Amino acid sequence: MNPATYGTYLVTQASVSAGRETTEIVEAAVDGGIDVVQLREKATDARWRYDLGLEVRELTAEAGVDLIVNDRVDIAQAIDADGVHLGQSDLPVAVARDLLGPEVVIGCSASTVDEATRAEADGADYLGVGSVYGTTSKDVEADRAGVGPERIADISTAVSIPVVGIGGITAENAGPVVDAGAVGVAVVSEITAAEDPCAATDSLAAAVETAKAVGDTPPHDG
Amino acid sequence: MNPATYGTYLVTQASVSAGRETTEIVEAAVDGGIDVVQLREKATDARWRYDLGLEVRELTAEAGVDLIVNDRVDIAQAIDADGVHLGQSDLPVAVARDLLGPEVVIGCSASTVDEATRAEADGADYLGVGSVYGTTSKDVEADRAGVGPERIADISTAVSIPVVGIGGITAENAGPVVDAGAVGVAVVSEITAAEDPCAATDSLAAAVETAKAVGDTPPHDG
Repeated sequence: MNPATYGTYLVTQASVSAGRETTEIVEAAVDGGIDVVQLREKATDARWRYDLGLEVRELTAEAGVDLIVNDRVDIAQAIDADGVHLGQSDLPVAVARDLLGPEVVIGCSASTVDEATRAEADGADYLGVGSVYGTTSKDVEADRAGVGPERIADISTAVSIPVVGIGGITAENAGPVVDAGAVGVAVVSEITAAEDPCAATDSLAAAVETAKAVGDTPPHDG
Repeated sequence: MNPATYGTYLVTQASVSAGRETTEIVEAAVDGGIDVVQLREKATDARWRYDLGLEVRELTAEAGVDLIVNDRVDIAQAIDADGVHLGQSDLPVAVARDLLGPEVVIGCSASTVDEATRAEADGADYLGVGSVYGTTSKDVEADRAGVGPERIADISTAVSIPVVGIGGITAENAGPVVDAGAVGVAVVSEITAAEDPCAATDSLAAAVETAKAVGDTPPHDG
């Protein structure tokens, strides 16, 4: 799939699912119209991620939803994922590109314009930019304050690949992220912690669509 | 290289090196005649392991020493390692074989005869069997009591691929491991924590050679 179509992007994280299986959350998100799913769960071992990945691959493939694996190129290849998402502490984008070839999607986390332009130059297909509003859901040290939609605008201007915002995004605050130039929004808790993950996905997609429709409307003249 | 030649096998672990760089330990082990080096350091991120791996690859390649990467098939490919070593919680051996092709060495940890025969059936080239004497150097829960050289004998009898003993092995107690059927011994602390890692490697190699020479000597008749 084309990352330019990544309007709603679920990043899995079992620890905020209130005891529900990751497959249950993914299935609900797929029903709610999610565009892409990233298998994160970095703290777990490779066998566990591989087994879970096979299940998630089946769920997403049936629905025509892209599946991206965080960090591990080998697990992405083993489960026939559509791509990998690399942080600044993961394998370099150029190395992953060598291993994966030109067709596989490679995303890269960037929180500054420098990181963003470097990732694009190294061959990334899209950027995950954040944390937009700050977050507590990542197990790594996060920018609690958030870089804001302003950084989305700065980076979207500086690169020509699609930008997805991540970090503290909800259906209520997704609009400014899209207005700033993001093609979509990535969330963990907004879907995974929701009482109804399917409805939460649907609301998020509606918020993104609304923002895009407003952005696409030519100004009235008169 | 042929895993049957893995007489002395260093598994890297910076936490027991008394502050010395992993490259310094590897260089000393190579000088001392090590046969193979496994890049473990599982707790570190992929970028760090990749960067370290490139340095260790250069050191080992120059000396004709095999380099094996623990767990990550992608890092092994990225640094042009000779192989990977997979634990029971890592990617399945058969999956790694599909990704790596027939030429790359795949080792697998086994502590029981069942695990050993399954790994061989799945395409492993050698087995790491232990913990032979118990160990405190692994970050995972280890069998503190140790499976003993008896388990090495049981597994060596059950499989036709080379067996390397691991866990609490020193120059002093390596003999019985080789006598039981192991082609070699893998160590962390015996080399990494040694005041002189080069001399420690040399002593370990001598112990393995002595045990093999005794094993090869036909019994006197008369």
